[in-house]
Amino acid sequence: MRTYALKRGGSPLYLQIYEGIKADILSGAIPAGEKLPSKRALAEHLGVSKLTVETAYSMLLSEGYISSRERSGYFAEEASMPVPAREAAGAYPRGACTDSPGGSSRDIAASGSAPSEETGFPFSVWARLMRSVIMSGGGSLLSPAPTHGLRELREAIAGEILRERGVRVDPAQIVVGAGTEYFYSQIAQFLGPGLGWALEDPSYHKIAKSYRRSGAEVFPLKADAQGVIPAGLEASGAGVLHISPAHHYPMGTVMPIARRGELARWLEGSEERYIIEDEYDSEFSFMSRPVPSMQSMDRTGRVIYLNSFSRTLAPSLRMSYMLLPEGLLDAWDERMGFYSCAVPVYEQMALARFIHEGYYERHLRRMNRAFSRARRETAELFGASPASELFELLRQGPGLHFLLRLRRGDGGEALRSALAASGISAPLLSDMYIGEPPEDAFRTAVIGYSLDPERLMRGLNGAAALLS
Amino acid sequence: MRTYALKRGGSPLYLQIYEGIKADILSGAIPAGEKLPSKRALAEHLGVSKLTVETAYSMLLSEGYISSRERSGYFAEEASMPVPAREAAGAYPRGACTDSPGGSSRDIAASGSAPSEETGFPFSVWARLMRSVIMSGGGSLLSPAPTHGLRELREAIAGEILRERGVRVDPAQIVVGAGTEYFYSQIAQFLGPGLGWALEDPSYHKIAKSYRRSGAEVFPLKADAQGVIPAGLEASGAGVLHISPAHHYPMGTVMPIARRGELARWLEGSEERYIIEDEYDSEFSFMSRPVPSMQSMDRTGRVIYLNSFSRTLAPSLRMSYMLLPEGLLDAWDERMGFYSCAVPVYEQMALARFIHEGYYERHLRRMNRAFSRARRETAELFGASPASELFELLRQGPGLHFLLRLRRGDGGEALRSALAASGISAPLLSDMYIGEPPEDAFRTAVIGYSLDPERLMRGLNGAAALLS
Repeated sequence: MRTYALKRGGSPLYLQIYEGIKADILSGAIPAGEKLPSKRALAEHLGVSKLTVETAYSMLLSEGYISSRERSGYFAEEASMPVPAREAAGAYPRGACTDSPGGSSRDIAASGSAPSEETGFPFSVWARLMRSVIMSGGGSLLSPAPTHGLRELREAIAGEILRERGVRVDPAQIVVGAGTEYFYSQIAQFLGPGLGWALEDPSYHKIAKSYRRSGAEVFPLKADAQGVIPAGLEASGAGVLHISPAHHYPMGTVMPIARRGELARWLEGSEERYIIEDEYDSEFSFMSRPVPSMQSMDRTGRVIYLNSFSRTLAPSLRMSYMLLPEGLLDAWDERMGFYSCAVPVYEQMALARFIHEGYYERHLRRMNRAFSRARRETAELFGASPASELFELLRQGPGLHFLLRLRRGDGGEALRSALAASGISAPLLSDMYIGEPPEDAFRTAVIGYSLDPERLMRGLNGAAALLS
Repeated sequence: MRTYALKRGGSPLYLQIYEGIKADILSGAIPAGEKLPSKRALAEHLGVSKLTVETAYSMLLSEGYISSRERSGYFAEEASMPVPAREAAGAYPRGACTDSPGGSSRDIAASGSAPSEETGFPFSVWARLMRSVIMSGGGSLLSPAPTHGLRELREAIAGEILRERGVRVDPAQIVVGAGTEYFYSQIAQFLGPGLGWALEDPSYHKIAKSYRRSGAEVFPLKADAQGVIPAGLEASGAGVLHISPAHHYPMGTVMPIARRGELARWLEGSEERYIIEDEYDSEFSFMSRPVPSMQSMDRTGRVIYLNSFSRTLAPSLRMSYMLLPEGLLDAWDERMGFYSCAVPVYEQMALARFIHEGYYERHLRRMNRAFSRARRETAELFGASPASELFELLRQGPGLHFLLRLRRGDGGEALRSALAASGISAPLLSDMYIGEPPEDAFRTAVIGYSLDPERLMRGLNGAAALLS
């Protein structure tokens, strides 16, 4: 049996095992199709718990490095070929949610119940931290933050990335900003809109709008079940590709490793190409740990990574961060360094303490548990409901949203109105296309899970009654 | 004696008198050169207190509608001709301050002492309001704010504009944003950078940088003692003019009414012309009430007004607002309405209450008193100091900053280093030119007043010793 030298006291053991097997698959030391040892056997061989190996295998499965065959075990996949994404961990897209005017449709705003119920936002902790920060920070809280954001917050975010993903980043690479939308415009100013911006069609509507308003030409690209199709990208002549490989909105695609490799090769094709990796909800995307970002595996130094606290805490916070590759730091500071950080200083300080004191991790765990239950209960209730005769519930994966498809009929405005009249404000999938949407997109709504599944089901049944 | 029908219970009486006389001067009913009644006589005639008339005259003086001749009284000015700005209320430019990396050089960041001392920021009130808002706002604080910002805050700002200036604006015209810099980019996206952006040279360095990064061509315009010279504007072919007529940074120019009229005529010359009126510190600019904005007198509906809470509260708050002319509201919403408001919701709520409960007004009064004393003491100390042999203190008007000019010698880096070595981090006036600065700009530093004038003077004397 292949062995891996594990270093106690270093990074977590499951990460070391994951890294070891992944490296062997990528190098060909474990050829495609080879059966991996059983979890129990490998655990005994390495002298670790079965749970440790389970975690490592689960990560490899999530990313498509290995596959599982019932009653047979685990097998290495061909890393340079498209790999089927594993259902439970990825192939379920996660869809979308309500779209209020001025609001952000990727934000948590599930249908039916109030946002506070949805997010379990820890008001009293936040109020206490905010008060403590304002009273103790004194004069230092009155100067504008340095252009990258407060050092304390950038260190806390770096710690969180290490804890969540096992990736070590330098806080100097982190830039804090007033929401992801803010960064779209900033990045367009940084790279210059003339490069041409390619994005997957459909996609989150603000992405194309922001880039167009910034003066960029936008190229909508067709996608398949593995994400954006590289041939279309080459043909577009775009210099920048904006994607959400960890979990595409609204389709929910998790991009398998092979497709990522193809996009990486496109990136390597010219010095004037960039990828913007927009990871807006990875904290809720996987039952185990999230897959590594494309940026953490990139060798060109031209992948800019974005993430946000809108989904995990509250959209009203307007806080997000960007991870700049080291090679772009000087250019960023030269071109964009004159801007003040747009996030209030004491809010940054409060979030730094919220993360540092462990509240953020506990909040994420609580949220994940609550939404797991909501998803399970919604699926059970739906199966026995009158709504299930008219609708299909698609992509009910581990995310915060699902797709609801009318089995037959016209859909469109009738579907939207019936949902709205039943208290569910949901966009149609067809709203999210830049080009011409396919027929079934007009029959598909993007709906946020509610932590009150019975209430949500009353709404869906109401809409079904109106439509039948 | 000319009479004015005053309406009790309407807008303040002094405003009605001011409006009446201004209208008569603009219409020619009071011809240029005509002597106005004495304050006492007009007060008796109208049945109001002498203070009421004094306030109205003071406003008319500030704006150049009338002039005062010693022992002779007050005389109407020619409103279509350049009018000398009144010394005490305007001709003093206010200069600049420290320029920290990533910070905003127009922000309050006076040399020497900590920002908290400088601003007297009411920490305990702010902490209490923030806590109360977070605890009582509940779920409504978790959704992103509507694109224009929270209604409560926009109403509070409209109330403040009415109180401060006597101008009634519709809260629907107000847009809240994450700092003035943020609006520069937003407005460039809105109008499209292709129009060409004209600004006064010198000017606040971030203005030209933001517009250039947004893809605009920037035209630096020469200025005289009354502000930007209209002939250069016409010749530039620019479609947008960015100015701070209430108080130009760093020159401190207060633009007299005649020059404003010339710029208004430029604006009327084409439907494709816009003025951005950037009023970053008007709350500290005048001993009496600030002059009316150009926007409030505009007839074209193409003046966009900006103001900020950075100077009056704290630069770290990152809060500013824009006042859109009614005619541009629909276009703004169509092009820019998809953006979420970039300011955290509970911060907006806290500021709304801060204004509504009278804290803001009290804070402004306290700040104005404190800086009046600091200015007076600085001037007194300077007059008797060794530094006064080497330096001239210019533009020591009612603002937060002054210009310090080396009487002879090279200046430049030697001046900057001597100041820095003495604890005063100040930019040189020459830093703020887009084009070639004049010789004396290299000998002139832009310095913020300190609420500890003795400390500031120790710094200035130290710098003088190093340079002599």
